[in-house]
Amino acid sequence: MSATGNRLVTFHSPLKMQVDTYKYPELTMPNGKKAPHAVIVKIITTNICGSDLHIYRGSFAVPPGMTMGHEMTGEVIEVGSDVEFIKKGDLVSVPFNVACGRCNNCRHMRTDVCENVNGDQTFVIDKATQHVDCGAYGFNLGPDVKSLDTASGWAGGQGDYLMVPYADFNLLKFPDKSAAMAKIRDLTLLSDILPTAFHGFASPDWPAAPSFGVGQSVLIFGAGPVGRCGAAVAKLLGYGAIIVADYLQERLDLLKPHGVETINLSDGMPIEDHLERITGSRTVDRVIDYVGVDCRGFGPEANVPVENSVTSALLKYVRFGGMTSTVGVYCANPLASKADYKSGSMETEWAQAWIKSPRMSAGQSPTMNYNYGLMQAILYDRMPYLTPMLNTTIITLDEVPEAYQLFAEGSPYKYVIDPHGSVSGQVPKGLNPDKLSAERLAPLKGDPLALGLPGNR
Amino acid sequence: MSATGNRLVTFHSPLKMQVDTYKYPELTMPNGKKAPHAVIVKIITTNICGSDLHIYRGSFAVPPGMTMGHEMTGEVIEVGSDVEFIKKGDLVSVPFNVACGRCNNCRHMRTDVCENVNGDQTFVIDKATQHVDCGAYGFNLGPDVKSLDTASGWAGGQGDYLMVPYADFNLLKFPDKSAAMAKIRDLTLLSDILPTAFHGFASPDWPAAPSFGVGQSVLIFGAGPVGRCGAAVAKLLGYGAIIVADYLQERLDLLKPHGVETINLSDGMPIEDHLERITGSRTVDRVIDYVGVDCRGFGPEANVPVENSVTSALLKYVRFGGMTSTVGVYCANPLASKADYKSGSMETEWAQAWIKSPRMSAGQSPTMNYNYGLMQAILYDRMPYLTPMLNTTIITLDEVPEAYQLFAEGSPYKYVIDPHGSVSGQVPKGLNPDKLSAERLAPLKGDPLALGLPGNR
Amino acid sequence: MSATGNRLVTFHSPLKMQVDTYKYPELTMPNGKKAPHAVIVKIITTNICGSDLHIYRGSFAVPPGMTMGHEMTGEVIEVGSDVEFIKKGDLVSVPFNVACGRCNNCRHMRTDVCENVNGDQTFVIDKATQHVDCGAYGFNLGPDVKSLDTASGWAGGQGDYLMVPYADFNLLKFPDKSAAMAKIRDLTLLSDILPTAFHGFASPDWPAAPSFGVGQSVLIFGAGPVGRCGAAVAKLLGYGAIIVADYLQERLDLLKPHGVETINLSDGMPIEDHLERITGSRTVDRVIDYVGVDCRGFGPEANVPVENSVTSALLKYVRFGGMTSTVGVYCANPLASKADYKSGSMETEWAQAWIKSPRMSAGQSPTMNYNYGLMQAILYDRMPYLTPMLNTTIITLDEVPEAYQLFAEGSPYKYVIDPHGSVSGQVPKGLNPDKLSAERLAPLKGDPLALGLPGNR
Amino acid sequence: MSATGNRLVTFHSPLKMQVDTYKYPELTMPNGKKAPHAVIVKIITTNICGSDLHIYRGSFAVPPGMTMGHEMTGEVIEVGSDVEFIKKGDLVSVPFNVACGRCNNCRHMRTDVCENVNGDQTFVIDKATQHVDCGAYGFNLGPDVKSLDTASGWAGGQGDYLMVPYADFNLLKFPDKSAAMAKIRDLTLLSDILPTAFHGFASPDWPAAPSFGVGQSVLIFGAGPVGRCGAAVAKLLGYGAIIVADYLQERLDLLKPHGVETINLSDGMPIEDHLERITGSRTVDRVIDYVGVDCRGFGPEANVPVENSVTSALLKYVRFGGMTSTVGVYCANPLASKADYKSGSMETEWAQAWIKSPRMSAGQSPTMNYNYGLMQAILYDRMPYLTPMLNTTIITLDEVPEAYQLFAEGSPYKYVIDPHGSVSGQVPKGLNPDKLSAERLAPLKGDPLALGLPGNR
Repeated sequence: MSATGNRLVTFHSPLKMQVDTYKYPELTMPNGKKAPHAVIVKIITTNICGSDLHIYRGSFAVPPGMTMGHEMTGEVIEVGSDVEFIKKGDLVSVPFNVACGRCNNCRHMRTDVCENVNGDQTFVIDKATQHVDCGAYGFNLGPDVKSLDTASGWAGGQGDYLMVPYADFNLLKFPDKSAAMAKIRDLTLLSDILPTAFHGFASPDWPAAPSFGVGQSVLIFGAGPVGRCGAAVAKLLGYGAIIVADYLQERLDLLKPHGVETINLSDGMPIEDHLERITGSRTVDRVIDYVGVDCRGFGPEANVPVENSVTSALLKYVRFGGMTSTVGVYCANPLASKADYKSGSMETEWAQAWIKSPRMSAGQSPTMNYNYGLMQAILYDRMPYLTPMLNTTIITLDEVPEAYQLFAEGSPYKYVIDPHGSVSGQVPKGLNPDKLSAERLAPLKGDPLALGLPGNR
Repeated sequence: MSATGNRLVTFHSPLKMQVDTYKYPELTMPNGKKAPHAVIVKIITTNICGSDLHIYRGSFAVPPGMTMGHEMTGEVIEVGSDVEFIKKGDLVSVPFNVACGRCNNCRHMRTDVCENVNGDQTFVIDKATQHVDCGAYGFNLGPDVKSLDTASGWAGGQGDYLMVPYADFNLLKFPDKSAAMAKIRDLTLLSDILPTAFHGFASPDWPAAPSFGVGQSVLIFGAGPVGRCGAAVAKLLGYGAIIVADYLQERLDLLKPHGVETINLSDGMPIEDHLERITGSRTVDRVIDYVGVDCRGFGPEANVPVENSVTSALLKYVRFGGMTSTVGVYCANPLASKADYKSGSMETEWAQAWIKSPRMSAGQSPTMNYNYGLMQAILYDRMPYLTPMLNTTIITLDEVPEAYQLFAEGSPYKYVIDPHGSVSGQVPKGLNPDKLSAERLAPLKGDPLALGLPGNR
Repeated sequence: MSATGNRLVTFHSPLKMQVDTYKYPELTMPNGKKAPHAVIVKIITTNICGSDLHIYRGSFAVPPGMTMGHEMTGEVIEVGSDVEFIKKGDLVSVPFNVACGRCNNCRHMRTDVCENVNGDQTFVIDKATQHVDCGAYGFNLGPDVKSLDTASGWAGGQGDYLMVPYADFNLLKFPDKSAAMAKIRDLTLLSDILPTAFHGFASPDWPAAPSFGVGQSVLIFGAGPVGRCGAAVAKLLGYGAIIVADYLQERLDLLKPHGVETINLSDGMPIEDHLERITGSRTVDRVIDYVGVDCRGFGPEANVPVENSVTSALLKYVRFGGMTSTVGVYCANPLASKADYKSGSMETEWAQAWIKSPRMSAGQSPTMNYNYGLMQAILYDRMPYLTPMLNTTIITLDEVPEAYQLFAEGSPYKYVIDPHGSVSGQVPKGLNPDKLSAERLAPLKGDPLALGLPGNR
Repeated sequence: MSATGNRLVTFHSPLKMQVDTYKYPELTMPNGKKAPHAVIVKIITTNICGSDLHIYRGSFAVPPGMTMGHEMTGEVIEVGSDVEFIKKGDLVSVPFNVACGRCNNCRHMRTDVCENVNGDQTFVIDKATQHVDCGAYGFNLGPDVKSLDTASGWAGGQGDYLMVPYADFNLLKFPDKSAAMAKIRDLTLLSDILPTAFHGFASPDWPAAPSFGVGQSVLIFGAGPVGRCGAAVAKLLGYGAIIVADYLQERLDLLKPHGVETINLSDGMPIEDHLERITGSRTVDRVIDYVGVDCRGFGPEANVPVENSVTSALLKYVRFGGMTSTVGVYCANPLASKADYKSGSMETEWAQAWIKSPRMSAGQSPTMNYNYGLMQAILYDRMPYLTPMLNTTIITLDEVPEAYQLFAEGSPYKYVIDPHGSVSGQVPKGLNPDKLSAERLAPLKGDPLALGLPGNR
């Protein structure tokens, strides 16, 4: 490669993101060890994630200088000596979880909790700072805010290039480049938010849900891109009543034309009354929290942070014998209003848990479990509603700092960065394009030749 | 009730069905015991099932005089003294499996193999005649073809009225009568073929299918109403490549506009070549047999019975580690071409099974596991394609004998009987209406008042 | 029946239980409706449960006059007109959950959350008093402590006779009376604590636990009878490191000879150091709370109530990707030390939940899912360690008030009441017999003739 | 390494095995490519498997010159440059399945059907010869019996050394060498037959088996080492009636003292009568075939091959709604009595399958799913009955040819080869030692120093 630099979005301080230039990545682990199992990916698309906003705001404290981005899609341009099945030129989706493919958890499909790629293999959480390391690109945090040295150190991918370790295990290859480029605005969601949304539905009922959730009711907190993907997944899986709650009307409006019911949390009507209006019942089969640490309150408190609003709602609105999923990020939150919340602790109604007999799950998505199936569902046109519900817009690297600000303010777009100008055609562009234009919904005409990619189908 | 008779479709001999009149049913078990747990249902709709055709043709031998029909939807008009939760006036779907709700299998959601409602509780199969009793309305067969006396004796429901035992356990109540009548042409499928089709997808992969089948490929044998429901279920569950094979082009044509790929088995092209054309692979994740005992061959044999054509195809077209489901009826078949087949036995490639490591399931659907969820999916408009794919037409009781003949000859309709003229409005009617007319796809305007049913929503 | 009275243990006030006499029960529901589906059971054995102690202590507030007892085994002596499969003379185990067998939850094996048998079918929890009704015999609580009228009203079974509704659905019949009487001291555990203990292990890992927990490590809080049953279940399921934590050494000592590791919570050594000593790791695959609302602290706090000690330990000691189960009772606790705890709410480390990706379950056991299998395991001698680990002793009804006191003080026995003197032979008897005597471990010689029960095998 | 040769058991012709010397293995794939992910293992123990007998007898045709053995335990003595977590000196169990850890099946725990390590990645079975390649050490077969060139070519491990590819993914490391050596006669079963036996129990019931099989009844065909492991697994999982059928009384006698019921298939009593005698029912919850292609008949045919005896028994003896598992090897069998059987095809009662609603599985064990848990169960002493039930004896490489003969004739031993004399102490030795002697049951005193292995605990 003749590339000599690597522009990457970098966290400088809360509310300050900046594009800095680093050297071109090597096939080397963060600790300096050779990585014959790694590849270098040239980024085609890389998205801003809602979880990046926690860092942006300062509620998820990270050291200055940390590079950002964990939602990458790209072309493989360099492969290590022990990469056998991924080839130079492959167009791939990079799961946001770094995973070794060799530990007991990875062998059992739990790539969300790989035992080897985190900064501290024994998962000891630093009690003093409450910082933990989650083994994701651009999301790995050392125990010491003054330094990145002790973190696992996976570089972020909001930029030009990315080193991906254990590439044969981690990467999802698109079977056909032309077909993939034509659907890149949906496929770019496979690196994180579509599988992450799916994860909210994947933990099983118990003893059994032989109908896989078909016809069930679900209450989703959050109409950001992940919550909107959650509504899309609920449709994909044949759920019955799909209800999304948020206080941002513009985001809710994206869902309404697609058979999704909405609750504006600032309208003053109790949630249980909304549920009864929609389903005839005051509880639902499944409640999913896609919001996490930066949640706000309900009703009169819809404009101010109320740290425990959603965690408290889980058990309240789930039916007896139902399921709750906590997908949004919770963490030690320096901005929280009281000590318990600062440490990441919130009240939970155990009395209600005992009488209601729920199953509850929390944590990150093991992306690899879902991304292949979701890719096929997209390629076979099973989610035509995904494009209008997500309302994706393509931006340049230079536009990223402003995009963080707009996104944090509640913009109804999913921002996708196109660092190399690879995504041509009629794709909507810019920080604030007209929403839902006809051209936005038209099939993309990605030009694989621009990528040097011959269509292989 | 002032009703004094009960018209029921009756099997007289192969190829001869007739509407005979019986006395109005009582809250009594077939053995004469009181049934305080039973109700009488006035039939609103009752369908002809593909499995009825095995009886019609004579490949599933039953005694003359057996009353037919196991796909009933109706209004409860009389309730026993131990019926607590189902009320007079309720509009209900009757699962085709009779089940007691009190045995170990029913307690574990296996209503397909209730231990108490079959003719012989110990499930001993009569070896001399190979007749078995499957505990379904209008499908229960005694060991002696000369008499119905020793059968479990559940009367069929292609007629005016039906006695349903263990009603609180068995019946699915529609929450809103008006809403249900407006979708009756889809909801009438809940008594059997839609859950039966679902059953082909429900047996789990192993060790795990955390994506529930999303994006997977499926090869479906049979484009009759059950096979078409199978394609609809595959869409509902977000499958990727959905491929239906049959030799009747008119049935396949109903599926094409809805994202379903088709194979005409008489076109001479090997199935594996079709699979490769569609998916890029010569095998699929799941193969489902919705055909059963009356299957025909492939290619040059597509016009003649080849008893083992589909059972042999299961292991051939499933991928290594995939899943096969046998949903179609297999039974002792007096019409078969050789002794093994007559007894219901067919060759199976165990060498292939060992090397391919499949999971295989067979048997009837435990309807109760799926009907509630599917009802909700219909009521929340998650299956708009169900109506055009099924191509339902409403007929009278008098038209039933001819409908059996047309259906057996490959008619592209689902025949739904309306014995009391309850289904008003623009529903397509008759044995051979124009297919896919605009009015057919319009919402029904069922008149609940005609039923004496006040809308309750 | 000539029986004219029914002695039942009755709650008068905290720390005061008394045996009062009531009239002989009828086949009538608590609301006065006929119950043709019910039976009357003559109690053979009825146990004092650890959850009864919450009521005894006052931490689970109930109205004075509530009859106690939900762990019953007995002989059916009267059957309603719609009881078909349970017969007079059957020896049965009564699951502690009352369940209708006709609602959606019961049909899906969720008898812990039956929709019909609770005081308020819509499961609305009374916010003022925080009382809820759990639909169990002798454990159902109305919203108003001044009256039993609004509770679901299922009479307790620590006494002579019990009415069991929906008997065909609810009762587990022992296949052979003589064989059952010879193992009655183990089989008496099937009505609650053995299935309840099992429930702690039943909620599945996810995505998959194809090894069913074989070889996994488990940390159990509580060495009372339920916790000891938990250790027995862990052995039955082939768990590896089985670790039980309590502060009562006498209870822990019962477990040591049977391959169970113990932690005395008052020894001052941190739990994580114990875990590392035993397993080499500071976390375990599964953490189970069998203690509930009356838990004490650890180390220096091992002698005083610390309401959140165990709920806080769940996420702390579970491994990344592990499983927690809350089986012990949590409820509004009038005795608690602060307002949150009084309402049944405790702090939960959501930051830890997000990074650790656990699956969590809570609630009562749906007994019916497990009792048949566990009965077979006992009858086939798969749990020879159950008898010595439980250390059962048989007492009379008159001894019950004192037994509550001893049990609450930490007695190392499981108290089983024999109201009619049915359990003869060398069974250890009395409130404080020598532990672990040879005769205690010998096979019982129950006399079925004393029950009028001919052995049927 | 100074090692210059590698003695390996080699198939020369049916009934003729021989120890030949080959060159010391290299870190190279069978196709000659470098394997930086591979290690060399010095064999500590390597077992003769029942599946080796199919090859020995000629019923599973392989090319002369194929090296044998797929049940290896050993010490890692050389590691490739991309092996990160397995270290020189580690004591490891080698799963018999070769697996890449990088394909879709491996990522989903289906190492039995790895997409990359077989001779032909597309799993095309050679129709002419019916040879297939199963991707196991010493069990991989090319399509052409005249040559090994086109097979996947994984060398066997009945010998001194073995190359293991993808070592970080494949190998199970024992946590403590001394502890492992002391239990080596049980741990040596982890490479194949104990997980293989477990696999027969692992495919789930459906819709749900919340009790994991506790108390269920199982009929096991085959009392060879795998069948005996099956009985041990059934005990480990808490099954109720555990019934093993064989015609070799000496093998059955090993099981009787351990709570296992036996059926001698030559005693003339129908199997269903035996089942009723043992369980009270003529069918069981689960039927497992551990025999495969070399099965014999029942009763009068117990001494002659009857190719379809066990496949036909599966559906006959399983209960309605039960489960069958085919674990034994089926393959094209040149020795079979008729054409269908020669090709690996056998009659199956599809009529019975439809009425009985079974779930059926077939194929090899994905060892990695079970071996870790089973290792822990052994290390924590949960299977004390394993040693006496297996009746292991240690032999030298020179004794192997005779051991094949004795094993094929029905010897009641599990033969474990100790090529380097690593297993010292009182381990029973020789081809025909006294069975069940006291010393055999005593703890082993393996000498880690002899291996140069410092105990690490």
